[in-house]
Amino acid sequence: LFISATMEALSILSGILLLLLSGAQSHEPVLSEKLIRDISNYSEIALKIIDYSLTGPGANQSYNRLATFVDRYGPRLSGSSNLEDSIDHMLYLLQQDGLDNVHGEEVNVTHWVRGKEIAQLLEPRSAELSILGLGSSVGTPEEGITADAVVMRSFDELEERKDEVKDRIVVFNPTYVSYPVTVAYRVNGASRASKYGAVATLIRTVGPFSIYSPHTGMQVYNSSVPAIPTACITIEDANMLDRLERAGERLTIHLYMEAQTLPMVISRNTVAEIKGSVYPDQVVVVSGHLDSWDVGQGAMDDGGGAFISWQALSIVKGLGLTPKRTLRLVMWTDEEAGGIGSQQYYQRHREDADKYSILFESDEGVFLPYGILFSGSAEAKAILQQIGQLLVSINASEVYDNGGGTDVDWWREEKVPTASLANHNEHYFWYHHSNGDTMDVLDPEEMNLCSAVWAVYAYVLADLDDVLPRG
Amino acid sequence: LFISATMEALSILSGILLLLLSGAQSHEPVLSEKLIRDISNYSEIALKIIDYSLTGPGANQSYNRLATFVDRYGPRLSGSSNLEDSIDHMLYLLQQDGLDNVHGEEVNVTHWVRGKEIAQLLEPRSAELSILGLGSSVGTPEEGITADAVVMRSFDELEERKDEVKDRIVVFNPTYVSYPVTVAYRVNGASRASKYGAVATLIRTVGPFSIYSPHTGMQVYNSSVPAIPTACITIEDANMLDRLERAGERLTIHLYMEAQTLPMVISRNTVAEIKGSVYPDQVVVVSGHLDSWDVGQGAMDDGGGAFISWQALSIVKGLGLTPKRTLRLVMWTDEEAGGIGSQQYYQRHREDADKYSILFESDEGVFLPYGILFSGSAEAKAILQQIGQLLVSINASEVYDNGGGTDVDWWREEKVPTASLANHNEHYFWYHHSNGDTMDVLDPEEMNLCSAVWAVYAYVLADLDDVLPRG
Repeated sequence: LFISATMEALSILSGILLLLLSGAQSHEPVLSEKLIRDISNYSEIALKIIDYSLTGPGANQSYNRLATFVDRYGPRLSGSSNLEDSIDHMLYLLQQDGLDNVHGEEVNVTHWVRGKEIAQLLEPRSAELSILGLGSSVGTPEEGITADAVVMRSFDELEERKDEVKDRIVVFNPTYVSYPVTVAYRVNGASRASKYGAVATLIRTVGPFSIYSPHTGMQVYNSSVPAIPTACITIEDANMLDRLERAGERLTIHLYMEAQTLPMVISRNTVAEIKGSVYPDQVVVVSGHLDSWDVGQGAMDDGGGAFISWQALSIVKGLGLTPKRTLRLVMWTDEEAGGIGSQQYYQRHREDADKYSILFESDEGVFLPYGILFSGSAEAKAILQQIGQLLVSINASEVYDNGGGTDVDWWREEKVPTASLANHNEHYFWYHHSNGDTMDVLDPEEMNLCSAVWAVYAYVLADLDDVLPRG
Repeated sequence: LFISATMEALSILSGILLLLLSGAQSHEPVLSEKLIRDISNYSEIALKIIDYSLTGPGANQSYNRLATFVDRYGPRLSGSSNLEDSIDHMLYLLQQDGLDNVHGEEVNVTHWVRGKEIAQLLEPRSAELSILGLGSSVGTPEEGITADAVVMRSFDELEERKDEVKDRIVVFNPTYVSYPVTVAYRVNGASRASKYGAVATLIRTVGPFSIYSPHTGMQVYNSSVPAIPTACITIEDANMLDRLERAGERLTIHLYMEAQTLPMVISRNTVAEIKGSVYPDQVVVVSGHLDSWDVGQGAMDDGGGAFISWQALSIVKGLGLTPKRTLRLVMWTDEEAGGIGSQQYYQRHREDADKYSILFESDEGVFLPYGILFSGSAEAKAILQQIGQLLVSINASEVYDNGGGTDVDWWREEKVPTASLANHNEHYFWYHHSNGDTMDVLDPEEMNLCSAVWAVYAYVLADLDDVLPRG
């Protein structure tokens, strides 16, 4: 999951607007009796999907497939051979699963490499600080950077103390408010400090809880100021440096980073389908991204999302169902480095926007699900709410606003509906972008439930008479 | 906190026996009316202690003192200059605090050093495994050890599969039951595997929860088998290796450890007192250990325990109180490497056992307190229960069985009562012996409460007419 602060702010604002609007209008859209009956007629199929996923041949399948996959390939950063090898194998697996039209769609992606990286506190005592360089960061000179550090608790403090920043390493120690708010320090911290002459920045990990675990993620240079090396440190070390500065201690830090951006390479969005029986050129997309950060196993972010999406097709196929329109799985590439994979897919396919009923993306956890998040017209939302009734037995019938995700939000421009999974992901940011993103975070039964939710929505929407209405 | 499996098993057994015995006896010991009145008379002083600690000059003092101390010195392993420098400074601080008889009591302690350590999974894929060598482990040869690995989920499985162990690295992946039970794999795993020809062992971290955080700790070689290198790995990696083995993959691991045991060095137990006004040669001891593992900050284990013990004396002194008998602070050295500091203290002072009313040790967290754990006679326990009534206002009046700790349990041999702090330490083993043991784990207000509990018990017991009755 990569959310730029701006994107998320817009998303929150649009959510508030939608809320105000929905509060203002006194009448809910009313579905035709035929449509209500059509959807209700899927209740038997929905139960079959749920049984298949929870206790049938699909039980624990997505978890076991994912474990085997990430144990074998590990983390899968854009540009890495890990990612390309894993895509090769994924194409093989999807073919083995008997899916249609299995192929990779080529994408030019960034290729940033971490290399060796070290941060050492030299004064007031010698200590190694655990760091993770931030994506797209430049490295240090060969001899590293040794400089005194200043600790800033906010961008406001940076502005107030800007005269103290020149030739210093700026340590940002903002209190965690929420990921979309606090991530601004990770995304923009380096350039904000570079503007005042800082030689490097260390950003407190963006997360609500840590056991001395640094979290990486993307950062963006402002081209009007020099690009300086930037890395995250742990919450614990940020707080320690903060206390030491307040106690009047001089902080001296040595930073060494080999990080560099190599020439772009060719990667692939991984695609597989169940071809529609009546409207094969119309599609419902289920998706997650196959790339991950280069730490941990990329099991949660976003192995889980990619694999329940595959599972949705597996379940439909396993039950011998063929929807009227095409059910398409896309496993995006290069989400973490900014979403180039999904952007290129959008650019290539946007002319067919009217044939896309909806794009689902799971990229915020596959924990215990309770429904779906949706972005689209009120009438389309009412249809999803009706489908949600098919999921009452597993307590996943709710439909909330603000569905979507980095990889599918491009389609909002064409008013194509998007949706994502509402799940108990309260601890998502404990593990996000860290070595803690492993299979241990996930649970087979929760993945079964997520897969069932995904499959019911995807199948029913792919089988209804019409694509979802636009706003 | 170091608990050998045997010690803890004995402690649990004795607890069960005590429980059975206390259930069997139909009459509780009855305190004399005078003693009840004497203790009740401390209610005003107890309130002063509580106010002093929670909202008076003592508020947040133990937390702030500890933060300043561990930020400055970092972790403090036996034999290290960090530990000796921190003891020097502690002696200075205790003198500055105006305490009596501030001195160090010399102890010969072990000097194990970690050095560089690396574990790499070579097959079925290349991955770095985060490790922490275990205390007293030998290192590898200079070229490291490269061998295939076998995963054992229990000692029973090791016995069943002992023929597969020769020339292999044994990975132990036992399910976490509880620290005292599961720690046996850390303490004895290397020798159990060495018996069957293993060349090294990797032990799953002994803890209930992890964010990819390895936990070190002491291990003990059995002298009848070759000493082989041993380290802990994370829960996550242990589970991954387990899954890979079950999937039939060949596991090849390269292990490199520079760990070695150097000649013993002189360290010190750190002692300070408030000299008793009537029975200066009789003592009540409050204690924690100043040494720690060489990871994190040693803030929880056992900076917190050592500093609330200092705080107990600070509060009594700050209120201008002088108890009848001596209130002694001991900050033990070398607890983590097996308790040599407290053992030598016991050997040096055991002849005065009749003058020791009780020894308190805090080494299981300084989180929200709810009472005290106690080991001693039923009559002594009744006295502590009466004192507990002075702590009702802060919900810390309970007295449970099984008090004590590694550093004070020696005194049970002389029937001297021992006690420890009952506190909400449910997450203690999330951080124990890991880089997660930092100031972030602790809370100033919880430390204020712990300090108040500690000070009330210590002061009242030091000021009563008699030392606590033996069993």
